Amino acid sequence: MALYVLKFGGTSVGTVERIQAVAERLKRYRDEGHQVVVVVSAMSGETNRLVGLAKAINDQPVNRELDVLLSTGEQVTIALLSMALMAIGVPACSMTGDQVQITTDSKHSKARITDIAQDAVMDVLNSGKVAVVAGFQGRDELGNITTLGRGGSDTTAVAVAAAIKADECRIYTDVDGVYTTDPRVEPNARKMDTITFEEMLELASLGAKVLQIRSVEFAGKYNVPLRVLSSFEEGGEGTLITFEEQDMEAPLVSGIAFNRDEARLSILGVPDQPNMAGSVLSPIGRADIDVDMIIQNSVGDNTADFTFTVPRSDYNRAQEVLNQVAADLGAREVRGDDKIAKISVVGVGMKSHAGVASTMFESLGSEGINIQLISTSEIKISVVVEEKYLELAVRTLHSAFKLDEQG
Amino acid sequence: MALYVLKFGGTSVGTVERIQAVAERLKRYRDEGHQVVVVVSAMSGETNRLVGLAKAINDQPVNRELDVLLSTGEQVTIALLSMALMAIGVPACSMTGDQVQITTDSKHSKARITDIAQDAVMDVLNSGKVAVVAGFQGRDELGNITTLGRGGSDTTAVAVAAAIKADECRIYTDVDGVYTTDPRVEPNARKMDTITFEEMLELASLGAKVLQIRSVEFAGKYNVPLRVLSSFEEGGEGTLITFEEQDMEAPLVSGIAFNRDEARLSILGVPDQPNMAGSVLSPIGRADIDVDMIIQNSVGDNTADFTFTVPRSDYNRAQEVLNQVAADLGAREVRGDDKIAKISVVGVGMKSHAGVASTMFESLGSEGINIQLISTSEIKISVVVEEKYLELAVRTLHSAFKLDEQG
Repeated sequence: MALYVLKFGGTSVGTVERIQAVAERLKRYRDEGHQVVVVVSAMSGETNRLVGLAKAINDQPVNRELDVLLSTGEQVTIALLSMALMAIGVPACSMTGDQVQITTDSKHSKARITDIAQDAVMDVLNSGKVAVVAGFQGRDELGNITTLGRGGSDTTAVAVAAAIKADECRIYTDVDGVYTTDPRVEPNARKMDTITFEEMLELASLGAKVLQIRSVEFAGKYNVPLRVLSSFEEGGEGTLITFEEQDMEAPLVSGIAFNRDEARLSILGVPDQPNMAGSVLSPIGRADIDVDMIIQNSVGDNTADFTFTVPRSDYNRAQEVLNQVAADLGAREVRGDDKIAKISVVGVGMKSHAGVASTMFESLGSEGINIQLISTSEIKISVVVEEKYLELAVRTLHSAFKLDEQG
Repeated sequence: MALYVLKFGGTSVGTVERIQAVAERLKRYRDEGHQVVVVVSAMSGETNRLVGLAKAINDQPVNRELDVLLSTGEQVTIALLSMALMAIGVPACSMTGDQVQITTDSKHSKARITDIAQDAVMDVLNSGKVAVVAGFQGRDELGNITTLGRGGSDTTAVAVAAAIKADECRIYTDVDGVYTTDPRVEPNARKMDTITFEEMLELASLGAKVLQIRSVEFAGKYNVPLRVLSSFEEGGEGTLITFEEQDMEAPLVSGIAFNRDEARLSILGVPDQPNMAGSVLSPIGRADIDVDMIIQNSVGDNTADFTFTVPRSDYNRAQEVLNQVAADLGAREVRGDDKIAKISVVGVGMKSHAGVASTMFESLGSEGINIQLISTSEIKISVVVEEKYLELAVRTLHSAFKLDEQG
């Protein structure tokens, strides 16, 4: 008998029939003798419906009220799933974020969990019921309703699992696990049985999008075993995210992530001065634009070139800010390109092996793919290329690192 | 400058445009310098949509989960109305029943308010904002979400008004006030400028349905001045429900209520025994059937006849129970009729005047309308007649008591 926290997203609870299917699946866990907490999202489409209502009334609704509005989506699901469980004889009790006592900071629409009481959930479990918990939501110290931002239900699940020391947190999703790369780009992509937290963090942040990155961070921090499974297929083992580093025989590279939601900006010929990087990037930050890759190149003529990437949707705005920065600093020129793609190879194996970078660069070069930017970390190498080469580059690297062979 | 609690029902907030119209109306209150708390219901249709989802999943959902589900309806409205207010420059803050600290007992789906804190609402008002409160919902001592039952938003408004000692509680509805009878039955029905709490209680409980009866009781108990106004017309004064008894010149009868949702049952020839009434009626109560009028007639032959009315929807079930009772007690016969109507004349004036009853009986008799049952209280006389006479009886009495003349 084990204690599980299971999470089902909006698609998995998107209709009455799917809610009933989730209830049946939970019943099987119970029949096997397990204790179960289930965390659910709003029914798919519901969040968009509510946002549509809000926008019709106020094109810039304040986040406090948006949180009050959107948190109803999960509240509907927990009530319906509890009813579905009771309809097949499984005792259940719904719990809002407030009732679970999920305390967050006050950053509405992107709050962070600061504390979760374990008693409330354990009381429900100890009374023999399934605890049906609303994902995505919490409450700040003042009693305001908060939400964790889109995808926050994953974080709720992991945080609850950490609080009650669950044996495993299982995220049911519309894929059956984590793949070496996106199968829509590389049909030979292979599902991994295990992956380390470090690798998962790099893959998730780079756009693999299987799991919300904050939930992975949370799981790593609190030692919560985390598994990704298919919501629609029975019997699969999914992918387990492990604490152990892979052994010496492990492949150098575990997976290939990519992202076409970025744009590149360069400011060239910035006169040398103290805190040059800050002078260039602080105005971007103040405009609330996230910067991803940052490369500084000082070429020795008392000026420097900076290149960085921003979300593609912020490209025009970032360009305006940067033009002003260039004027203020007396820089020579601003350039940009929003037709780029970022491709990253990720793997803890590369920590102890040289040669990953050269394999990467050579294989891309042999296909005539020009690399515009390079950025590296301990377990990741990212390059920026022209967007049109994205699919070719992913397939080339997948094959170069033999990811289609059984690991 | 005054402190108002205003309540808008589901029809008044049924669309984005109507929510915006409510916001405009609230802005005018603010422009006149008033402090405003607004209590709102779920958008019309929303509660039925949610109940439909619940029934599709579980044809007998437990009330605890139904409350979790249905309370989302009001939560959506408070968020949207707050956004609408802010869109036109009026500071606002939404509050769930829990955030207002509306404490109730634990009778899910028909909870009663046991306490309301005044601080939470006053803090919002004192910060210069409109407090936008979710009607219909509260929280029990254990933290479970409760609802007050349909129409409960009126009760929320009155209870909040009592807690914060508001100058007036104004219930905006789809009629422009309380009428001497239903204008659909008697076109000469007249809107009353004032009515006493006692009269309003009798009218509401008898089916006038302008205000939820519990809200009127609450207002009477806590001395909250209560006014019914039209949500769709500007400028009307509606009907004020007053504490003062009307003066000596007041009309004997204020209004005529009626109800065709009842059925009549009689058990005849019940052998005399201690607690006869209890023996007959307790089984009906245990079957969860409400009894309205009760008449006992002991005819002197050591048996008694009982007649009572029940909701028409419970008629068949009540008849089954009564047949069993008759067998158990050795009664002679059970009779019933579900084609009846109850008509009541109501007025504090009749307390000090004889002759109301005889006027009532004579005018009905002169139209050939036979009276089946009579029941009286201090300020009300009710009769049961064949349903087909309902409209004729109402018009006859409206005219007999000169209700179409200006009061």
